[in-house]
Amino acid sequence: MKSHTRYLTMTIPERMDLLNITADVEAEVRASGVREGLCLVNAMHITASVFINDDEPGLHRDYKKWLEELAPFDPSPERYHHNRTGEDNADAHHKRQIMGREVVVAVTEGRLDFGPWERIFYGEFDGRRPKRILIKIIGE
Amino acid sequence: MKSHTRYLTMTIPERMDLLNITADVEAEVRASGVREGLCLVNAMHITASVFINDDEPGLHRDYKKWLEELAPFDPSPERYHHNRTGEDNADAHHKRQIMGREVVVAVTEGRLDFGPWERIFYGEFDGRRPKRILIKIIGE
Amino acid sequence: MKSHTRYLTMTIPERMDLLNITADVEAEVRASGVREGLCLVNAMHITASVFINDDEPGLHRDYKKWLEELAPFDPSPERYHHNRTGEDNADAHHKRQIMGREVVVAVTEGRLDFGPWERIFYGEFDGRRPKRILIKIIGE
Repeated sequence: MKSHTRYLTMTIPERMDLLNITADVEAEVRASGVREGLCLVNAMHITASVFINDDEPGLHRDYKKWLEELAPFDPSPERYHHNRTGEDNADAHHKRQIMGREVVVAVTEGRLDFGPWERIFYGEFDGRRPKRILIKIIGE
Repeated sequence: MKSHTRYLTMTIPERMDLLNITADVEAEVRASGVREGLCLVNAMHITASVFINDDEPGLHRDYKKWLEELAPFDPSPERYHHNRTGEDNADAHHKRQIMGREVVVAVTEGRLDFGPWERIFYGEFDGRRPKRILIKIIGE
Repeated sequence: MKSHTRYLTMTIPERMDLLNITADVEAEVRASGVREGLCLVNAMHITASVFINDDEPGLHRDYKKWLEELAPFDPSPERYHHNRTGEDNADAHHKRQIMGREVVVAVTEGRLDFGPWERIFYGEFDGRRPKRILIKIIGE
């Protein structure tokens, strides 16, 4: 069994943004030499997500608005107890649960085995500082 | 290490519906010959989900109502920017994020290692056309 | 390829609570002897979650309040059709979908390959009875 591990570091200038990282993951699949296996991609920080959806700017705008409705940014300690610790990012911990921590993608014949529109995104909900993503590929 | 890949194609007559695919996945686990490993099952389309929950029609009715409340169908371009592209399925991209893209299930002694009520479902949120599901099993 | 399977049993005295199970999972990674691979941790019951986030009591209080807003406990058969079966836990099936069923964590150099604040939690939404968690580690 082969395994391949790589860390990406992201510094997103906005508090919330969604970034297509598919090409980075594809490069690691090629580098791994794995032909048949599984590829895990996860945020290593708990106020960020890795998810698969559509690379369409209107949809990304919709997601940001929707996440803000479901878990509004509010640095005050009234809405979120977490912000009594001195943090202001409780909303980001909630947004991340909606969008998820990780994806697991099949590797088939040496490539990410994707449907027609599947792309991998990094979802940042408390940006403006460096954060890491993990890519782990196992197989043969 | 063994690996086994299979694609299912679903054409759901409704816009939104939930379908039990457990028997299909079990058949592929048997066909794989894997005794100990992992089984990935994912929607290959970004307006559909694969998830694990209860095979109870009342609960499925509840899920559909709840998802409609969290992300209502609205083909107009006012609520969802995504629908300015000519699509009408922005709501489906949101519903899929709640229900998830994929499940990873342990394979133990040649079988899906399930709790008493775990069943695998395909969740369709923009149906009436053929869509694919991927099953990938790796192990020994 | 090595594989290692372990079941934990939890009896949570509250209906809803979140419990840090990181040390249990770390112990199984050590016991597995796997140096490079993947570790799956999932709830085996469909009214519970396994997820990764922060071990901060204020945040856990926030999560419980938020989940209660998104899917309120209501044993009556009016809000949830599922409760017409004699169950009173339809809300728990919804809460579990927000928080997720499972996590897949990379194992690198014999350890869970975590970011600085990542911890694994069991999320119980219909407690007061024994329920199981599955840990499956594969790799070499």
